[in-house]
Amino acid sequence: MIGLSSYAGVMESLMNSAEEQQPSSLLANKNQKPKCVGGFVLVHAGAGYHSESKAKEYKHVCKRACQRAVDRLKAGALAVEAVAAALVELEDSPFTNAGMGSNLNLSGEIECDASIMDGKSLHYGAVGAISGMKNPVLVANRLLSEAQKGKLSAGRIPPCFLVGRGAHDWAVGHGIPPCPSEKMATKFSLSAYKRNKRKMELAEKMDTGHNQAKKRRQSSENENGSGCLDTVGAVVVDLQGNVAAAVSSGGLAMKHPGRVGQAAHYGCGCWAENACNMNPYSTAVSTSGCGEHLIRTMLARECSAAMQSEDAHQALLDAMQNKFISSPFLASEDRVLGGVIVLRCCRCVEPQPSQNIQGILVEFLWSHTTESMCVGYMSAQDSKAKTHISRLPPGTVPGQCLAIEGGVCRLTSAVE
Amino acid sequence: MIGLSSYAGVMESLMNSAEEQQPSSLLANKNQKPKCVGGFVLVHAGAGYHSESKAKEYKHVCKRACQRAVDRLKAGALAVEAVAAALVELEDSPFTNAGMGSNLNLSGEIECDASIMDGKSLHYGAVGAISGMKNPVLVANRLLSEAQKGKLSAGRIPPCFLVGRGAHDWAVGHGIPPCPSEKMATKFSLSAYKRNKRKMELAEKMDTGHNQAKKRRQSSENENGSGCLDTVGAVVVDLQGNVAAAVSSGGLAMKHPGRVGQAAHYGCGCWAENACNMNPYSTAVSTSGCGEHLIRTMLARECSAAMQSEDAHQALLDAMQNKFISSPFLASEDRVLGGVIVLRCCRCVEPQPSQNIQGILVEFLWSHTTESMCVGYMSAQDSKAKTHISRLPPGTVPGQCLAIEGGVCRLTSAVE
Repeated sequence: MIGLSSYAGVMESLMNSAEEQQPSSLLANKNQKPKCVGGFVLVHAGAGYHSESKAKEYKHVCKRACQRAVDRLKAGALAVEAVAAALVELEDSPFTNAGMGSNLNLSGEIECDASIMDGKSLHYGAVGAISGMKNPVLVANRLLSEAQKGKLSAGRIPPCFLVGRGAHDWAVGHGIPPCPSEKMATKFSLSAYKRNKRKMELAEKMDTGHNQAKKRRQSSENENGSGCLDTVGAVVVDLQGNVAAAVSSGGLAMKHPGRVGQAAHYGCGCWAENACNMNPYSTAVSTSGCGEHLIRTMLARECSAAMQSEDAHQALLDAMQNKFISSPFLASEDRVLGGVIVLRCCRCVEPQPSQNIQGILVEFLWSHTTESMCVGYMSAQDSKAKTHISRLPPGTVPGQCLAIEGGVCRLTSAVE
Repeated sequence: MIGLSSYAGVMESLMNSAEEQQPSSLLANKNQKPKCVGGFVLVHAGAGYHSESKAKEYKHVCKRACQRAVDRLKAGALAVEAVAAALVELEDSPFTNAGMGSNLNLSGEIECDASIMDGKSLHYGAVGAISGMKNPVLVANRLLSEAQKGKLSAGRIPPCFLVGRGAHDWAVGHGIPPCPSEKMATKFSLSAYKRNKRKMELAEKMDTGHNQAKKRRQSSENENGSGCLDTVGAVVVDLQGNVAAAVSSGGLAMKHPGRVGQAAHYGCGCWAENACNMNPYSTAVSTSGCGEHLIRTMLARECSAAMQSEDAHQALLDAMQNKFISSPFLASEDRVLGGVIVLRCCRCVEPQPSQNIQGILVEFLWSHTTESMCVGYMSAQDSKAKTHISRLPPGTVPGQCLAIEGGVCRLTSAVE
């Protein structure tokens, strides 16, 4: 059974024109330089469980992240810069499981994953299991921009993925200041660590004398404490039609040191691809949830590829059902936990073609199999961001059912 | 221009029957248990440049690796165990850039990447930037088998990818003995490090006063010293029709500490998928070459997907040309360096159906854009492995042209 939340309710919420829009390739008019600047951003503060008491905080941080991205877009920034700005705000919140306030690992340390992809250049940067960096996404973004500069001395190829101590030292060497790990832990993350540690010790004590193999196959009610999956991410399109995506995560609570999740995995944590000869739509995706499930299904890239079908909503529904919940790669899993935010866009064909007006039709969606997912979205034409906590329909089972919602937005700009 | 080495010359070299074979799904007869054990292995000692003087050593290690895998297959091992055995032999050779004798990084340290995938369970294990482990593939394989056991205490999801110090400590905690890093360096790797360091310092000295940005875009004759790309890998099919793939690498010479290449990247270093309802063929792929190029094109998974087309040779040729050399993801690269070994198989329909004979048709191929690639292959029916150094046709340009070769083998077994 697939649980479907209201789609039409949010759909068209940002549609600022009653005219019928026909999509055409973003390749058209690529040499025209827009006079206005702007774009659209969609962010998430994680697929997991958001209690009513925490809802307000999550919505607030999503709102601020949208505003940051829009500020950058209005200042003329490209999508990739705007998406990084949104991520910094999401990482800086002590409520999200990314940057500040990240989950602690088995040794009580914070190790973060983050990645960013630029749909224009198709360049990508990622860091895994990095400690002592307040904003892991800025290190990933710096890797991306350094790689765009071309080869290093003696013809060496610049790295796109750095991990651990090496990633930290590279960042410091490139002028990104370190942050003492103890400053990144919060009262909440420390008490969660102590609670989880006690829970683990108790579980291991209870298992003594039991069949180890049997135990490991059993699942308990409180498994995967889905409240701790609050990876963050964002997708952006700028007014030139460039897309970008980013993701950042503190990883699963009590993970083994050195464990790298989907947020640092190419094709799994985020994906962005501008329209090209083969693809009529530009697409951008960011994922959240159980890293191992998102890695083994390569969910970001799968959703991006699916978005080239005509019906975006149906395509995302099919992808979440067939490539995630029912994926042959997760056949042995009883609950498949994750969520995605997706954006796709194409240039509008104007009903009365005009030399000096062009439009981009943006379709934005989110879908999750976790109990809830907090999202925010905003176009540069809006005065403030809209935020929403999407929840599975009552009575449905997390990890086996999904919710899907979305909207449409039309961006217009005068061209020279 | 595409350089094509002789294909027909190797084709059918292992064909042990003159009968016409018609492929059918490996799903057929899946409940029959074969009385005999056996299978087929294809290994590579890297796509790069193999001088005539080193050719003998590379062939020797490929031969030994094939023999190791076949020994395991004959002892009743599944594909995934056999592929790990082949990798251990390849890693132990001081001539390959994996395990013992790996390239040294910028700090003069050895950090290895490795991954393994089981086409039967679709489970996957990987380690990145791991130091002090003689056989990184054994750590990756242990991650795979631990993940197959199900959840950890308190419902925690077992990791599929560990990096750096955490990966090392996890391995030691699981009984895999550490190996002092100084024992893993060889006379050759140490002298290559000193040579590379001098070259780098000279290049940086010469650049002083020059335009830094301009310099970084220039390419020199000796760039990427393709002799140092000797990642190793193997693909195996067992007589039950299960496939597995693995890859292991010391990474690019003078890489930044913490840099992780394709060998630890899901979908990029290796891929294995048994036949299923959607896929008529079982496929296994292992890649070698410039990690960043192989990551950004997700070459292992792309080649595996391509192998579901009817003509295996044409499909691999198209994949190497369109998804690698001409990939939009590498549009800014003037030379795209890499190689793959590919295996695909299906159950044969016998011309005279018999209750007690079943056969598997194995097609095996290799293709590379580097100057050369050393491969070895062997079926459990053979007395010894065949080895071969494939080279680009004279006058073709590495990174812009490719060579492709392959063969066919029919495995038979009596069934109960």
